[in-house]
Amino acid sequence: MKYSRSAVGAAKGKEPVLQTTSVYAPVQEDLYRVEENLISLAKIDTPWLSAPLQYILDGGGKRLRPALTLLAGKSYRYDLDLLLPMSTAVELLHIASLVHDDTVDGSTVRRGKSTVSALWGKNTAVLVGDYLFANAAELVSRTRDVDVMRLFAQTLMTMANSQLMESVSTFDPNQTRAQYYERIGGKTASLFSMATESGARLSKASEDSVTAMREYGYKLGMAFQIIDDLLDFTGDEGELGKPVGSDLSQGILTLPAILLMEHSPKENPIAGLFRNRGGDGHLRVATDMIRNSSIADECYAVASDFASQACSHLRDLPDPTTRQALTDLADYSVRRRK
Amino acid sequence: MKYSRSAVGAAKGKEPVLQTTSVYAPVQEDLYRVEENLISLAKIDTPWLSAPLQYILDGGGKRLRPALTLLAGKSYRYDLDLLLPMSTAVELLHIASLVHDDTVDGSTVRRGKSTVSALWGKNTAVLVGDYLFANAAELVSRTRDVDVMRLFAQTLMTMANSQLMESVSTFDPNQTRAQYYERIGGKTASLFSMATESGARLSKASEDSVTAMREYGYKLGMAFQIIDDLLDFTGDEGELGKPVGSDLSQGILTLPAILLMEHSPKENPIAGLFRNRGGDGHLRVATDMIRNSSIADECYAVASDFASQACSHLRDLPDPTTRQALTDLADYSVRRRK
Repeated sequence: MKYSRSAVGAAKGKEPVLQTTSVYAPVQEDLYRVEENLISLAKIDTPWLSAPLQYILDGGGKRLRPALTLLAGKSYRYDLDLLLPMSTAVELLHIASLVHDDTVDGSTVRRGKSTVSALWGKNTAVLVGDYLFANAAELVSRTRDVDVMRLFAQTLMTMANSQLMESVSTFDPNQTRAQYYERIGGKTASLFSMATESGARLSKASEDSVTAMREYGYKLGMAFQIIDDLLDFTGDEGELGKPVGSDLSQGILTLPAILLMEHSPKENPIAGLFRNRGGDGHLRVATDMIRNSSIADECYAVASDFASQACSHLRDLPDPTTRQALTDLADYSVRRRK
Repeated sequence: MKYSRSAVGAAKGKEPVLQTTSVYAPVQEDLYRVEENLISLAKIDTPWLSAPLQYILDGGGKRLRPALTLLAGKSYRYDLDLLLPMSTAVELLHIASLVHDDTVDGSTVRRGKSTVSALWGKNTAVLVGDYLFANAAELVSRTRDVDVMRLFAQTLMTMANSQLMESVSTFDPNQTRAQYYERIGGKTASLFSMATESGARLSKASEDSVTAMREYGYKLGMAFQIIDDLLDFTGDEGELGKPVGSDLSQGILTLPAILLMEHSPKENPIAGLFRNRGGDGHLRVATDMIRNSSIADECYAVASDFASQACSHLRDLPDPTTRQALTDLADYSVRRRK
């Protein structure tokens, strides 16, 4: 599979959200190719499928995961014929899981856009998600690397299992930090880890370097998700593109809410909120208590610790430019506002 | 991966529906191993997942598709270390697609058993289906055959696309035979074809033989689905384990209903039924018109033709026992009552 420069030009109109930062610089041109690949996947001769595909694949999103795959390969034998289908597949897997998660959660808005299930109905969303999973698997098969193909399948198993764990534990106030870490490890960090591991492995990195990249990705994913869950309470509704406190209103317990229950075991409104399956009054009280406490600082501390652990695995990375980009990415993951 | 005889003994309590016929005889012992594999997949340490998995994987079903994979390999270099994970994956893919289809259709009963979405809710059903797709892909990766892994992914894409085509065209009375053949080709015959092609390919059959096995599977799948769609009108409710006319009541147009509209373009109740999104009176009239006409004979003729075409691809099969079993299977697919 070869990629022409002209395709890259066409994709420049659809720039990933992070393109203005320096973080993606070493792989920016190739990320445009990923974008172009994503757009081209919707160009199929079946209108019932191409319309929702075009809607989800055409622009938007940080494209963080494909950037990780490309960056993980950058220090080694960087081969676009392998890394482009792989990084496109990584983003597709992410998008497919969002489509199914939004269907399961009943979410109507993500990143300020209506969800597929809100626009086309849950039935279509289930099948479009299936198609995207399969399309991702098909792209991975183009690498002809059996170990990476197996890693892909195992990651999808882990993600589905953790997402189900989240789904069955909604509105259950008895959840521990350990369960939370396990859950986000499965639903988010496993995909980050697959993104970096596959990039290194396809670039013929040594087993030690593959392990280091996998560990970096996993810890980065943990930091990223913790900040995601914090921003759900402290972020700006306009910037986030979804209502504040939406996790809690859907009965999903994340680190800020778990810390609130630890801090104020008797006075917190979460048990009441969960008993009533929502309720704006309770939700506002919980959000205010989290905002007016040290919880944000504690979440930042935990996320920073994961980010530092991630960066500790970059020590032996041979290429300094890539090492700096991956360090900046860890920094960005903790500092970001959306 | 090695399989012990003791595992086979344990699985004998869960015998595939067809085990009393001679059709599966050449691979019967190995089908018990597939059954045991399926049961063992539910034995995982996550109760929210293991309960629904056990429910769907533990017995029941014809196990026709894994039998096809095993039979397709039987004439060539039959290697259980490859064919067992593959045939288990083929059945898992089938089960996963049923779980999602029932979720999309809102079906509450299949084969006389409540569906996963009826018992655990649609949300769980979506994620359990995802897990099963991933588990199937993981099993295929154990064959370490890149072409078969790619075939698997492409088949899943085709199935999701066709299922979506069916879903978006519900309650649309303007559908042709050609569209129907395309739809069942994608949702059913593609999986049959993958089952036989993968069995032959993993057994080192020549490219000509792989093609013959693929064509046999595809045509058999067409015959099988046409009879399935006919039995939905003419079958016994008790034997089928679902209400008569359930496709039509869900707005799904199959060959018998298309023939009815061709025969009686003005007097048939289907347009009315679809306008009202159901209605028992209309449904009973349509079912009676189909039962009291030559439509069943016409469907049998079409299905028999596909079955004959399937068998024409068996001419050069070296092993006479396997050839007979595959011929009997085509015969059974047309003659079956459930």
